[in-house]
Amino acid sequence: MKIAVLPQLNEAQFKLLQSKTQADLVEINESEITAADLAQFEIILGWSDKIVDALTMDHSIKWIQLWMVGVDSIPLDELAEHEIIITTAKGANAPNIAQQIVGYLIMFTRHLHTSRDYQMKHQWERPADYGELTGKKALSIGTGEIGQAFAKIAQAFDMTVDGVNRTGHAVDFFNHCYAIAELDSLLGQYDYIINSLPHTPATDKLFAEKQFNAMANEAIFINVGRGKSVDEKAMIQALLNNEIKGAGLDVFEVEPLPANSPLWDMKNVIITPHRAGISDFYSPRIIDIFLENFPLYQQGKMPTVNLLDYQRGY
Amino acid sequence: MKIAVLPQLNEAQFKLLQSKTQADLVEINESEITAADLAQFEIILGWSDKIVDALTMDHSIKWIQLWMVGVDSIPLDELAEHEIIITTAKGANAPNIAQQIVGYLIMFTRHLHTSRDYQMKHQWERPADYGELTGKKALSIGTGEIGQAFAKIAQAFDMTVDGVNRTGHAVDFFNHCYAIAELDSLLGQYDYIINSLPHTPATDKLFAEKQFNAMANEAIFINVGRGKSVDEKAMIQALLNNEIKGAGLDVFEVEPLPANSPLWDMKNVIITPHRAGISDFYSPRIIDIFLENFPLYQQGKMPTVNLLDYQRGY
Repeated sequence: MKIAVLPQLNEAQFKLLQSKTQADLVEINESEITAADLAQFEIILGWSDKIVDALTMDHSIKWIQLWMVGVDSIPLDELAEHEIIITTAKGANAPNIAQQIVGYLIMFTRHLHTSRDYQMKHQWERPADYGELTGKKALSIGTGEIGQAFAKIAQAFDMTVDGVNRTGHAVDFFNHCYAIAELDSLLGQYDYIINSLPHTPATDKLFAEKQFNAMANEAIFINVGRGKSVDEKAMIQALLNNEIKGAGLDVFEVEPLPANSPLWDMKNVIITPHRAGISDFYSPRIIDIFLENFPLYQQGKMPTVNLLDYQRGY
Repeated sequence: MKIAVLPQLNEAQFKLLQSKTQADLVEINESEITAADLAQFEIILGWSDKIVDALTMDHSIKWIQLWMVGVDSIPLDELAEHEIIITTAKGANAPNIAQQIVGYLIMFTRHLHTSRDYQMKHQWERPADYGELTGKKALSIGTGEIGQAFAKIAQAFDMTVDGVNRTGHAVDFFNHCYAIAELDSLLGQYDYIINSLPHTPATDKLFAEKQFNAMANEAIFINVGRGKSVDEKAMIQALLNNEIKGAGLDVFEVEPLPANSPLWDMKNVIITPHRAGISDFYSPRIIDIFLENFPLYQQGKMPTVNLLDYQRGY
């Protein structure tokens, strides 16, 4: 069995794959590969746009293990037509994103970002009001792996985390889940509002003037989803007018965030360069997903972990 | 029954005490009170050095609920002689200190401190290596309330936390506890070394050149205990020589940290101004401790929560 390996793996990761699959693994630099090359592999780890061309040839491709969480950039229709098995990286970045969310919240609550500013100036300055996460209420918009990983950790801080999803169906680790239609009426009740949604037509500028107005003046807004889910001008106004207390932002309408954005200089904004999703655990977790599915595939069965459902589109 | 209230409480806190005790509560500004004033109270909330003088008079003092965790500044011998019941604030600052420890660790692991530095310069810079707390090993020197609160939270991050105490006795939430005599041989095995010890003759410069040498080059050192437990020059050398990877420091040999300390400018050092112990939950937690003990006291029994044992001295 021939397996193409497009992601850059380290030696230990590659050897693990080899020993567990006993297959003919070929590491390929995506920029150098042709569709004809790809057509000869039964399994492909990672993604290349050339796969679409390979499918139009006489090909062996049966299973693609994606190295990405979202599939919005993948031509699902073509893949479905050829009955390609697709498994995704869903959940592989959830722990690190959840940890980074907690990082923003502790920084705000314990003044660790402003202490850093004072450190730069060699100043021993003590803000007046030191809080805790204890007892705080968070609303997670998005109850997928990221929201769940955050809600699970938040329990250890004695926080209460409610969730928002399309239908309001219950999800593990959340105190209560609400339907997205109820969002505006919910926002005022939370200390922390956390967006982890992908950008879709339904989430475009989901957080606009009305939503920021609805938040409590003491609320902290966290965005680890996509910048285009937020009307950035409205958020900046809300921050300037003290309609919300602060924001921890990993994603922006335009990235890199332009040097002249007013967000950079706001003391109550923590800016990170769209790296919440990056972790040295990312590839190992996807390899685990693949290796859990591999024996099933060998037995002629369908993979069960992170199997893409073409009907649902995720 | 007359109760003196020396700490500054807000109205809600004062009313809660009044409604639960039905006693004659008197708020007193410590700087204005005399020993003769204090001598007429049966219970004192908080501490004043004038209490020692009050005890030499004809006095009513039976119970002091301290507003501090450590009792190293309290003349225990005099209080013992008068058979004064002492209850402490032990544990009241543990949750916030534990949360701040987690804050330092996430900042280091997710580059949130250096992102803040870049933010000041309007720079979208992405460090190469983003990690997680997942699977990391921490050693907590001190297995009291602070260490336990940290170890409990750390479980939610799938970390392993070992503890060090005098005898190596097992303590809840720790994977394993070791005796302090074993410290030097342990240090090399951990990603995070966390000191939460008070300063005593036994802990004076506990962390010196030998200990920093014993730590792994990738180790992060956290000090939320006392600055004098660390040989600061040795720590600075270890940081300069990359013998450890970084340090999160709330306490220092000299406080405020002098403006010319080399620590301020070290990119791999996070400095906070000895505020890890401060929280808006502090007084409420001590009031809870007091009110849990109060009914017992009224029944002529001894308080059970945070009762000082004069024999042990804590």
